[in-house]
Amino acid sequence: MEVVPGSVGTNASFSLRLGQAIFSSASLFFMSMGIQFYSYTAFCYLVTIMGLAIPWSFTLAIVDGYSVFVKCPIRQQGILMIIIVGDWVLSVLILGAACSTASVVDVLLHSNGSYCPPRVCSRYQISAAMAFLSWFLTMSSSLFNLWLLPSL
Amino acid sequence: MEVVPGSVGTNASFSLRLGQAIFSSASLFFMSMGIQFYSYTAFCYLVTIMGLAIPWSFTLAIVDGYSVFVKCPIRQQGILMIIIVGDWVLSVLILGAACSTASVVDVLLHSNGSYCPPRVCSRYQISAAMAFLSWFLTMSSSLFNLWLLPSL
Repeated sequence: MEVVPGSVGTNASFSLRLGQAIFSSASLFFMSMGIQFYSYTAFCYLVTIMGLAIPWSFTLAIVDGYSVFVKCPIRQQGILMIIIVGDWVLSVLILGAACSTASVVDVLLHSNGSYCPPRVCSRYQISAAMAFLSWFLTMSSSLFNLWLLPSL
Repeated sequence: MEVVPGSVGTNASFSLRLGQAIFSSASLFFMSMGIQFYSYTAFCYLVTIMGLAIPWSFTLAIVDGYSVFVKCPIRQQGILMIIIVGDWVLSVLILGAACSTASVVDVLLHSNGSYCPPRVCSRYQISAAMAFLSWFLTMSSSLFNLWLLPSL
C-alpha cells in the first residue's frame, strides 16, 4: 500500500500537527494578552475555537509521534474518517474565526473613536494571521488524509 | 456506473446551482440596496465574491439543465476536477465573506455611535445569512462531486 506524505502516522503529519498546535496557541496567546478580548463576539469566538483546536492538534500530534516511533501507522477506515471529518469541521470553524477577527480589527482600526490603541490592535492582527496559518495547516491535514482514504 | 445524486448533470445538482445563484443574488441585493456598503472592507469583499459566485453558479446551472435535458451527464475526470476545485475555492471565499460581514454587523450593532440605523443593519444581517446559505449549497455541490470522482 502506498504511503501518502502528510497522512496520519507519517513524519510530515507529525510536523503539520505540531505546526497547528503552535499557531493555534500563538493565536490564543496574542488574543488573550490584552484583557479586552471579551468585548467583541468575534474575539470570544476565536478564543473558544482555539480552545478546541489546541487539544485536538496536540492529541493527534502525540498519536502521530507514537505511530512514527513504533513504525505502525493507523490504517482503520473508521478512525481515518473521524480524523478527516474532525479536521474539516475544525478548519471551517477556524477560517470563520480568523475572518471575523480580521474584519473586526479592520473596523476598529478605521473607526474614528479611540477603540483600539495601535499596540493592542497589532496584537489582534497577529492573532488573526496565526489563526489563518492554523486554518491552512488543518485543511492540509484533512486533504492529505482524504487522499489516503480510497486506497484503504 | 452509479449516479451520485447532486453530482454534475443530475436534477439535484440543477436545484443546488439554482439555489446558489438565488441566495448569492439575494445577498448581493440586500448588501448593495444601502449605498453605504463601500465604507467597510468586509462589505466590499462580500460584494466582490458574490460577483464571482453568481456567474459561476448560473453557468453551471445552465450546464446541468442542458445535461438533464439531453440525458447525457458530463463524465470527464478533468472537467469534474475543475468544477470540484472551483466550488471548493468559492465556498472558502464565500464563508470568509459571510463571517466577516456577520462580525462587522455585530460590531456596528453594539457600538455606541449611530453608525448603523436598525433598518440598514437588518439588511446587512439578511445579506450575511444569505451568504451562509450560499456557502452551504456550494460546499454540498463540491462534496457530492468529490464523492463521484473515484468511480470515474
